[in-house]
Amino acid sequence: VKKLINSAETVVTDALRGLSAAHPGLRVDPDGRTVSRSGGPTPGKVGLVSGGGSGHEPLHAGFVGYGMLDAACPGEIFTSPVPGQMVTATAAADGGAGVLYVVKNYTGDVLNFELAADLCAEEGVEIASVLVDDDVAVRDSLHTAGRRGTGATVFVEKIAGAAAEGGASLAEVTRVAEEVNARSRSFGVALSACTTPASGRPTFELGETEIELGIGIHGEPGRSRSTMRDARELAAIALDAVDEDMPLSGDALVMVNGMGATPLIELYVVFAEVAEQLAGRGVRVARSLVGDYVTSLDMRGFSVTVCLLDEDLTRLWDAPVETPALRWGR
Amino acid sequence: VKKLINSAETVVTDALRGLSAAHPGLRVDPDGRTVSRSGGPTPGKVGLVSGGGSGHEPLHAGFVGYGMLDAACPGEIFTSPVPGQMVTATAAADGGAGVLYVVKNYTGDVLNFELAADLCAEEGVEIASVLVDDDVAVRDSLHTAGRRGTGATVFVEKIAGAAAEGGASLAEVTRVAEEVNARSRSFGVALSACTTPASGRPTFELGETEIELGIGIHGEPGRSRSTMRDARELAAIALDAVDEDMPLSGDALVMVNGMGATPLIELYVVFAEVAEQLAGRGVRVARSLVGDYVTSLDMRGFSVTVCLLDEDLTRLWDAPVETPALRWGR
Repeated sequence: VKKLINSAETVVTDALRGLSAAHPGLRVDPDGRTVSRSGGPTPGKVGLVSGGGSGHEPLHAGFVGYGMLDAACPGEIFTSPVPGQMVTATAAADGGAGVLYVVKNYTGDVLNFELAADLCAEEGVEIASVLVDDDVAVRDSLHTAGRRGTGATVFVEKIAGAAAEGGASLAEVTRVAEEVNARSRSFGVALSACTTPASGRPTFELGETEIELGIGIHGEPGRSRSTMRDARELAAIALDAVDEDMPLSGDALVMVNGMGATPLIELYVVFAEVAEQLAGRGVRVARSLVGDYVTSLDMRGFSVTVCLLDEDLTRLWDAPVETPALRWGR
Repeated sequence: VKKLINSAETVVTDALRGLSAAHPGLRVDPDGRTVSRSGGPTPGKVGLVSGGGSGHEPLHAGFVGYGMLDAACPGEIFTSPVPGQMVTATAAADGGAGVLYVVKNYTGDVLNFELAADLCAEEGVEIASVLVDDDVAVRDSLHTAGRRGTGATVFVEKIAGAAAEGGASLAEVTRVAEEVNARSRSFGVALSACTTPASGRPTFELGETEIELGIGIHGEPGRSRSTMRDARELAAIALDAVDEDMPLSGDALVMVNGMGATPLIELYVVFAEVAEQLAGRGVRVARSLVGDYVTSLDMRGFSVTVCLLDEDLTRLWDAPVETPALRWGR
């Protein structure tokens, strides 16, 4: 598979060089693999740190900035960052009011963030963690005990980030982050596999009319193979899976997310079906995102994430944010 | 090729339904194929209208909103909108100070916008047009007399939109739009062809290690076929082509644009090379965009667009904008 890279070995470093050149608001260390706000930590504010394997861009580095993350640490492609990166990111985020780790539920990430938390606690930094596990497709998975963390990560980072920016305590920011995760569910569908630069081969094989229902963001198996359906049916399958796990009602924040190689016109077609079918289930799409937010390299497909809103969460979602991938209000 | 659609016949209408559901700030007529600001025309402000074939999302409908377009009219996939749509869009944009059409240089678009201009002039609306023809790859092309209009369209719409929002006259907004086009050049590279929903087959064939240098946004042939190169070489080829046509110096606004199925991590790798090589040529990347802005359905590849800035253009670029695909300052 052709890729716009210099070499498989340098792809993460090169992409971070590009991120640095494009966004003067970020302080990027391409070799040390950390990204933080160029202004440094905000004194007295709870810091937010996230990280995970690369290949899911704009997650997480694209969400560093005012109102969202203070720092991110990208690992190698589909590989957890190491504790040393997390410690550096924590220092870049620590304004003296404690630091919250937003951790997607994958074994490597969980373990390394725990090690980093211990190291930072020894240095006197108060650390809390929230585990994101919104993907209803499967209970356990490759590299995962329990459900996988996917699209809800964006919601957690945005909403907890707004709470932190507003001056909330570490306990309160943590509570908000946990609440967003508890109110969010996701389901993904793959039309094609993804190919890592190192292997050069698709992570799995899908036939010309085959799709994978419940795909993971590293190409992990979902619930089943199926034949291709139209957008209306795929939206129904995703919403059924979400609704079965968390009965849907009221106002919702809804994301239709592209997996990295899905044209925007197709994401809007899916969103039209999702919004219409949610209305039919008595759910109002109060806020939404349509685009590439949590990707899987060059995978074709989409995921749907639904978060049931209340007034507080809506207010925090609407609060100003200024990051490479999400920006409003300033 | 698998696509997230309901049918080839309804893909544009369905995507517009999605656009409408996702963006309450837009007034969308999915059947009439027009998109405008939900608040209607701004009295006393010059209106900006653009349009063209669908399949290039977020262009143009994703750029309707404060500080940019007043209305857009999407045609069928890779097909010019018809004059009737343009007339409706003009009415939705007409605040009494005249309306500027931003027209990409393709024969169908040029002809239909001319017809629409005549019809609107008969109704007493003052109309001006700017032709965007920034693509240096080829002189003439399929469906094009003269150079093709591609990435610079985003710059023209943003900067002329800011001038209009700031109260400039139709003559002044037109002059600014022409200046942006005159100062902008683009060059694109395809790693794969795109597939229209109607045909279901790639518009052309590229071998496993082949690429097309100077690709058009409908898959029109460029300058030559080549073997795959690394990102550094591809950036150099694109910048050489731009620099040959318009010697580069000073401050630049630079876009590295994805063609629709290019992962963001790869676009940042390309941007790193572009920024570094521009610095080596004595050009400072003063402003930038990295992402999918002018796409070609599911094509894999990228384009580079460079606009040589001055103080006025920089100020207009920085002015607040609030559209689905471009937002800052509010």
